Amino acid sequence: MGIHTYFQSLNDLERIIRCPGKFKFEEHSVAAHSWKVVQYAKTLADIEERNGVIIDWKKLYEITSSHDYGEIFIGDIKTPVKHYSLQLRGMLQQVEEGMIAHFIDEHIPVELQPIFRRQLREGKDQSVEGLILEVADKLDQVYEAFTELKRGNTEREFVTMYVEALRKISKIKLHCVTYFLDHILPELISESENCPVDIRQITVDALSATA
Amino acid sequence: MGIHTYFQSLNDLERIIRCPGKFKFEEHSVAAHSWKVVQYAKTLADIEERNGVIIDWKKLYEITSSHDYGEIFIGDIKTPVKHYSLQLRGMLQQVEEGMIAHFIDEHIPVELQPIFRRQLREGKDQSVEGLILEVADKLDQVYEAFTELKRGNTEREFVTMYVEALRKISKIKLHCVTYFLDHILPELISESENCPVDIRQITVDALSATA
Amino acid sequence: MGIHTYFQSLNDLERIIRCPGKFKFEEHSVAAHSWKVVQYAKTLADIEERNGVIIDWKKLYEITSSHDYGEIFIGDIKTPVKHYSLQLRGMLQQVEEGMIAHFIDEHIPVELQPIFRRQLREGKDQSVEGLILEVADKLDQVYEAFTELKRGNTEREFVTMYVEALRKISKIKLHCVTYFLDHILPELISESENCPVDIRQITVDALSATA
Amino acid sequence: MGIHTYFQSLNDLERIIRCPGKFKFEEHSVAAHSWKVVQYAKTLADIEERNGVIIDWKKLYEITSSHDYGEIFIGDIKTPVKHYSLQLRGMLQQVEEGMIAHFIDEHIPVELQPIFRRQLREGKDQSVEGLILEVADKLDQVYEAFTELKRGNTEREFVTMYVEALRKISKIKLHCVTYFLDHILPELISESENCPVDIRQITVDALSATA
Amino acid sequence: MGIHTYFQSLNDLERIIRCPGKFKFEEHSVAAHSWKVVQYAKTLADIEERNGVIIDWKKLYEITSSHDYGEIFIGDIKTPVKHYSLQLRGMLQQVEEGMIAHFIDEHIPVELQPIFRRQLREGKDQSVEGLILEVADKLDQVYEAFTELKRGNTEREFVTMYVEALRKISKIKLHCVTYFLDHILPELISESENCPVDIRQITVDALSATA
Amino acid sequence: MGIHTYFQSLNDLERIIRCPGKFKFEEHSVAAHSWKVVQYAKTLADIEERNGVIIDWKKLYEITSSHDYGEIFIGDIKTPVKHYSLQLRGMLQQVEEGMIAHFIDEHIPVELQPIFRRQLREGKDQSVEGLILEVADKLDQVYEAFTELKRGNTEREFVTMYVEALRKISKIKLHCVTYFLDHILPELISESENCPVDIRQITVDALSATA
Repeated sequence: MGIHTYFQSLNDLERIIRCPGKFKFEEHSVAAHSWKVVQYAKTLADIEERNGVIIDWKKLYEITSSHDYGEIFIGDIKTPVKHYSLQLRGMLQQVEEGMIAHFIDEHIPVELQPIFRRQLREGKDQSVEGLILEVADKLDQVYEAFTELKRGNTEREFVTMYVEALRKISKIKLHCVTYFLDHILPELISESENCPVDIRQITVDALSATA
Repeated sequence: MGIHTYFQSLNDLERIIRCPGKFKFEEHSVAAHSWKVVQYAKTLADIEERNGVIIDWKKLYEITSSHDYGEIFIGDIKTPVKHYSLQLRGMLQQVEEGMIAHFIDEHIPVELQPIFRRQLREGKDQSVEGLILEVADKLDQVYEAFTELKRGNTEREFVTMYVEALRKISKIKLHCVTYFLDHILPELISESENCPVDIRQITVDALSATA
Repeated sequence: MGIHTYFQSLNDLERIIRCPGKFKFEEHSVAAHSWKVVQYAKTLADIEERNGVIIDWKKLYEITSSHDYGEIFIGDIKTPVKHYSLQLRGMLQQVEEGMIAHFIDEHIPVELQPIFRRQLREGKDQSVEGLILEVADKLDQVYEAFTELKRGNTEREFVTMYVEALRKISKIKLHCVTYFLDHILPELISESENCPVDIRQITVDALSATA
Repeated sequence: MGIHTYFQSLNDLERIIRCPGKFKFEEHSVAAHSWKVVQYAKTLADIEERNGVIIDWKKLYEITSSHDYGEIFIGDIKTPVKHYSLQLRGMLQQVEEGMIAHFIDEHIPVELQPIFRRQLREGKDQSVEGLILEVADKLDQVYEAFTELKRGNTEREFVTMYVEALRKISKIKLHCVTYFLDHILPELISESENCPVDIRQITVDALSATA
Repeated sequence: MGIHTYFQSLNDLERIIRCPGKFKFEEHSVAAHSWKVVQYAKTLADIEERNGVIIDWKKLYEITSSHDYGEIFIGDIKTPVKHYSLQLRGMLQQVEEGMIAHFIDEHIPVELQPIFRRQLREGKDQSVEGLILEVADKLDQVYEAFTELKRGNTEREFVTMYVEALRKISKIKLHCVTYFLDHILPELISESENCPVDIRQITVDALSATA
Repeated sequence: MGIHTYFQSLNDLERIIRCPGKFKFEEHSVAAHSWKVVQYAKTLADIEERNGVIIDWKKLYEITSSHDYGEIFIGDIKTPVKHYSLQLRGMLQQVEEGMIAHFIDEHIPVELQPIFRRQLREGKDQSVEGLILEVADKLDQVYEAFTELKRGNTEREFVTMYVEALRKISKIKLHCVTYFLDHILPELISESENCPVDIRQITVDALSATA
């Protein structure tokens, strides 16, 4: 047993669908989501760098590409469950970490184990890379929800997803967040004109509620 | 808000796929699984009745058809997570029950609330109906795993699923379990001849390990 | 051959899609439909019972869960075909019953044959259970059609399906039908505001035409 | 109403799946099947022509491309139903023809109605074109069944489909049938070596039983 | 190797999806598209014939049914690539023809090779049959794009596809094009009333720009 | 227009399926493939680093995550087409680069254009990062093909894909290639025992033919 098991397991994340149970015009696998987070984070980090911030690209690479690997072990538990209580959240994170640790012990060769332990740790810390990951992860929720709403999906869950992701992004102090709010979000809104839902108003409300 | 929200929510269980992440030749929704459990349970209860056992058909109806309704709220959490510790299992069950209680309070008219509370309770108790539900639920795992193995699925997870479900069934003291082991299982095995996996041997091992 | 063949055949109803040929945002298998009918019927029967009607729960269980099992043998023949002439309808029903009888003779053990004959009979008789089944079956057409219309499906077939199912329900004399028309249908309509189709008007027309 | 309704209705045949209910590694729409029948028939007719037979290409074009158009109206009724009795078969064909006639009356402009009546008639008569259509239609069953068996599908239904289609082809007196049996079928068999099912033996048995 | 390889290869066109990458409510295989082109062309040719034009039905049959067979070898290359430069277009066509020629040499029996070379040639020449194929092929783009727009698809690509296909059709001098513009297109437009996009205006603009 | 268009376009790569036309038990989007290449490359680079090689992680991040972005513009052209002639290959690459350049000019803000030009360049140069990308890209072909073969896919195309990808990897002089051949490949082979195809022999042949 070794790296082969790890490489082969990546395939499993192509079959775990995000946000199961809700009607969607388009479904997204955890693998495709992970790739989009990698891509957003790259551009977000480029914007930080242009503002003079130093980026640890190796760390950013590791934490963005692997940030949902743990779902292989615990599945895509619904967000409200995760947030039910701090105790439950802590316990679920502990289970996930325990399973990842067990996987590394069993399948990864000893000489590579420290590297895998570092890569598969929870990446969302308060470092600039950790914060970029948090923004990129929420950005994908913004895009998933926006795209459904634009196509006429009437499930309220997607309004909630859009609003909450936007709020979380707007609270993070990064140059790239300012850039997103000033330049990218307005473009997104300007594309939402035919939407049954009034994206512009929802956006304004979401951001003002934050202040 | 009322029964309409409940009726409409049933549709969500058509979109939650069982055993996410693993490669399957055929995927099963929680809705379709629930229906098959209803069907197995009916025949299992018929067999009990023919052996002189009295069945509470209303109760059996309620607990079989609704036994996975809670997945709308918490999703299909992977089995190893549920069994990680008694404490976590208890906490997850508490979250599920809390969410169901909240749903009933908010959406079900007062006069029907007692009925819904009874129906959406955990059904797997030690009554004959609760035990039949347990057998029927595991029986669907036997069939899901067997069908994948018969078609050439080489994921070890399905051997594990088959073996563990069979063991759990064989430990339950019911006339219908004896009937299953004596009459239904041999037919199933006799159909497995071209399987790449030796179902007969696996079955013998699973059942002898139980003894 | 025996119960195993029957249990395994249930899987086939997961692969028969209702209303084939028409564009749908979401497809429904006969298995998932059957489960939803079981669920609707349970709540409808609860409402009857609260109004003092005595329910034979065993019978209701049997006829709701198996009411479309015959589609394994004859497929999902389009409704207009079934209703083309009384003679054709009778003949198709005869074929279905003949095939079910033949299946029972060949696969079900002698001692269980009477039970299966009773369960797989046509359930829509004039008993309260038979009428509840009829309402529950049509209710699922109401929900299937309504959900498509709400999402913007412009196929006229779904307006027709909605209207005809509603009319048939409204003609059945049961307490639960009154409850449905008075409490559940208004909630459903109040959710249809952004619909391209005017559900409220269609509903009013459908019900007044009945009178 | 006019030709537009007809053109648009063609899309419906992309959504009707052949052989519903049975597990398949690959599903085939009636539209894709129709195209393959058109293609087989073309080559079969080329072979006839090379043997000096005169082909009415316009007729062949019409009957092959439209031969399953009627399924829009009646759906894909299971073969055993169609063959249950001569009376039922006649009645179903009458319904289909009635619905096609009604469609033409309602949607096709008067000046094109005779053309559509001719095209949408049952094409499998005893003319060389009608016989080629019959061979091409059965040939697609041979390929559908063979491909499933080659991939390890263990449903007995596909052995039956393969055998019966082959038998029907072999009984038709055409040069192209001789060519198929002498040149195409042996190639097909030579590709079946790794099959769990012994295609060669099944083929020999099917054809000798015919004699 | 022989005709078997050709017959079996047809199946590959059921798995090549048209217009990959763009969001669609409904996907179309090259096989289903090919069948619809065969059907449109038949009616278009009927209209020509009623206007006194002589149709070579054998040629029309051959070129319509096989017009996208080459995609088996080169895939569904995006239209802008094909039109990037005359040189690239010529080169891609040369590759496709080379691969078809190679396939015929290797798999088709010598006596049938001339027939296959004729059938699998590029069919869109200036003959009436070649022009009908061109109209039928573009007509399917009109229907694919129209159907997406009618269902609320907001991707601009489908407006472009609709407009460009319509323009190309309107420039071809055939009786059936006049018939299409005068009788079929108005019906299509009259069905587009609830569309988020103003199909009527887009159509008028597309056709006037042509003049 | 700006970064929003770029972020939104990433979604298109979730809908482009790799290797279109061939039967697969499991399909892979270009987005999911891209993510797996990112993951393989990370571990391959870790192995290089442990052997004293200096990795430019920023560059590796950029070229692996974006290496197939160009498929949005040109689609997934079949490999034999790309390799038909050096001239065609050069021309296709020129078209892709031209379209990417045009996209950047039109959608990316001036200040970020140099960054995007660098990121979306062809990454497979002779630097260690370029070579790692080449290995990681081919490694995904090895895994895609191996997984199909293990499940019983009999299409010869997957044997070819496996062999050619393996040969290309084995010719690249990197520490991680040695590690792959010595440690990862043997694990992969040891899992292939029940395969209808003899993976071990095919692997030995592929690698010895290289020498």
